[in-house]
Amino acid sequence: MASSIPPPEVLKNPPNIPEKQLFGPGPSNMSHEIRHSMDAPLLGHLHVEFCQIMDDCRVGIQYLFQTKNPLTFAVSGTGHAGMECAVMNLLENGETFLVIQNGIWGLRAANLGKRLGLNVQTIILPEGSAASLEQIREGIIKYKPKVLFICHGESSTGVAHPLKGISEICHENGTLLLVDTVASIGGTEFDADALGVDCVYTATQKVLNAPPGLAPISFSEKAVEKIKNRKTQCVSFYFDALELGNYWNCFGEPRRYHHTGMISMVYSLRAALAAIAKEGIENEIKRHKENIVYFHQKLEDAGFKLFVEDKDLRLPCLTTIRVPEGIEWKAVIDKLMAQKIEISGGLGSTLGKIWRIGTFGINSDKTKMDKIVSALKDATFSANSKVN
Amino acid sequence: MASSIPPPEVLKNPPNIPEKQLFGPGPSNMSHEIRHSMDAPLLGHLHVEFCQIMDDCRVGIQYLFQTKNPLTFAVSGTGHAGMECAVMNLLENGETFLVIQNGIWGLRAANLGKRLGLNVQTIILPEGSAASLEQIREGIIKYKPKVLFICHGESSTGVAHPLKGISEICHENGTLLLVDTVASIGGTEFDADALGVDCVYTATQKVLNAPPGLAPISFSEKAVEKIKNRKTQCVSFYFDALELGNYWNCFGEPRRYHHTGMISMVYSLRAALAAIAKEGIENEIKRHKENIVYFHQKLEDAGFKLFVEDKDLRLPCLTTIRVPEGIEWKAVIDKLMAQKIEISGGLGSTLGKIWRIGTFGINSDKTKMDKIVSALKDATFSANSKVN
Repeated sequence: MASSIPPPEVLKNPPNIPEKQLFGPGPSNMSHEIRHSMDAPLLGHLHVEFCQIMDDCRVGIQYLFQTKNPLTFAVSGTGHAGMECAVMNLLENGETFLVIQNGIWGLRAANLGKRLGLNVQTIILPEGSAASLEQIREGIIKYKPKVLFICHGESSTGVAHPLKGISEICHENGTLLLVDTVASIGGTEFDADALGVDCVYTATQKVLNAPPGLAPISFSEKAVEKIKNRKTQCVSFYFDALELGNYWNCFGEPRRYHHTGMISMVYSLRAALAAIAKEGIENEIKRHKENIVYFHQKLEDAGFKLFVEDKDLRLPCLTTIRVPEGIEWKAVIDKLMAQKIEISGGLGSTLGKIWRIGTFGINSDKTKMDKIVSALKDATFSANSKVN
Repeated sequence: MASSIPPPEVLKNPPNIPEKQLFGPGPSNMSHEIRHSMDAPLLGHLHVEFCQIMDDCRVGIQYLFQTKNPLTFAVSGTGHAGMECAVMNLLENGETFLVIQNGIWGLRAANLGKRLGLNVQTIILPEGSAASLEQIREGIIKYKPKVLFICHGESSTGVAHPLKGISEICHENGTLLLVDTVASIGGTEFDADALGVDCVYTATQKVLNAPPGLAPISFSEKAVEKIKNRKTQCVSFYFDALELGNYWNCFGEPRRYHHTGMISMVYSLRAALAAIAKEGIENEIKRHKENIVYFHQKLEDAGFKLFVEDKDLRLPCLTTIRVPEGIEWKAVIDKLMAQKIEISGGLGSTLGKIWRIGTFGINSDKTKMDKIVSALKDATFSANSKVN
């Protein structure tokens, strides 16, 4: 056989991978330990040593989410795969799904619900705000949803959605509480069990400082009961939580082959969880909260206005800044990128209005923050960033 | 906040990751280059340098599959995610899906089809065999399916399914041809365009010698037309081929954010594709085909019987061996594993009947094969492997 498509010339050269300061909304920079954790030989996906690493990750994820839920594992996919695993398992065709939509993640959850044939209802809120308990109670009483979706860390606006008191309203009305913590976990308080959260997922490339690839997830007993009583199977085998729960040893049964686990990614997740366990999750959160006050003060001192007006709603790991009038937002980003510093523009409806600066995990550091503020100030207020 | 779940003690210790010879059905061993490709800093998922690496991978995947299909990319998930992406995009609720079931992968495809509400029909064949053109024609005429599924490399039995002449039957009858090449690509001839394949997917952890994590996939023009004319959206946003196609620059449009690409995994995929481009896909296939004849002869000389009787149906990268009568299959596997050599048992209905030995990519090597045969012979015919 002579192949008719020739080998691509471009693959003869090595890739160009410059070292950058990643202060966008993720991926963040890896620590030395996490980066090198992947430089290890592969194991089989059911080898005893790999099963031990999975078990280590499982308890690490329980620690991260502050939960004793047995059905806790990592989906083999990025953060959005976590959302799909949650929604596809918790709901079935025709059931009502209530989504708090205060940015892009609620929009995505609602879109996914429609794809799955759910009865999707939304509570739509202005960007930069969060739902009050009264708004939530009204929505739940009106729609009687099976599941309520809240994004804890709305990375398109920089809002940390308050979670206290919500599960009580949900559970009084037969609703499960689903929380997206992709951009918040480890950066602000989250205690799944104390908050009564029924399903929570996150991703590895934000506060965890690991490469994107896995979505830690956890289901409460109430959630498991709902899943076990489904009339139809989960539409996806890949995201089937009970199958994944078996593979991740959540039920104490012998592990069955489900899919080939992402060996190297799981190594990096373990390293990330070990780093958090070492610092202590409460110390990690405290560090983010202290540093963000410093960062916001520095930004305001430099003449910037923060997008989220209510201080209590600001995410301690992702800051949104109003693009000053007359400034070309993209030119500023490009100037920083030329210095190998990434910050990001808005996403969805905030595009063009804001900049987003992630200070996740090891990037929540006062020295790094000083440099960012200084670079942002220079890039913004130099002559050629003005709108023509 | 004091956390109520304490940091897990087990995360204080480093993980135990011994170096093994991976001769199971995958993951296989990584080459030095691929292993170290992940030890590079992260880039953002839309940075210009990362987009270039994705573009490089795209042409590399086109080369791997021997196709000019523009809609060619890698799903951010393992091999099974490739299957889900294919089936969820090519078919919608109520449509007929015909599955050739000669092992576990057909079973899985049929299961997925049922989860998705498809009208699933099967051609069920004995293990170790393949469907004839006549059987396929009969099935297609009888069921008029929208899609026919064939597993090219049935890793549960060791069969390489012949593919010539099938697309002609499909296309005469308005059927698209979907082929799983997870265990075959790079190990035996496959030319998507010449074979008229409408959708093909594979995985990274077999002949490619990369870690599990991505599923290269390609859709023909006919397949794209079918997808564009769907009445309903793909149930999954994560696996939506048109959204993924935009992110992977398949349509020449500006890239939109879809999900956070698996940066480190994409580095490893690029390294794997570069290695194949360097050797030349036809040389790689030739090497597998020559070496497997040698390996099979050595196994037969040592007293083993191969499971697939028809020589023309044997996969050149995965060998299935009958467990000799009176031998405890698991004891043999355990003895080899104690020497850090992995071989595997059967899967699904072949469990207990066969051993499976993968010789993928760099593991298709006569010296390594000699060692495996010798170790297998010792482990099998030593006294304590006999059934009690």
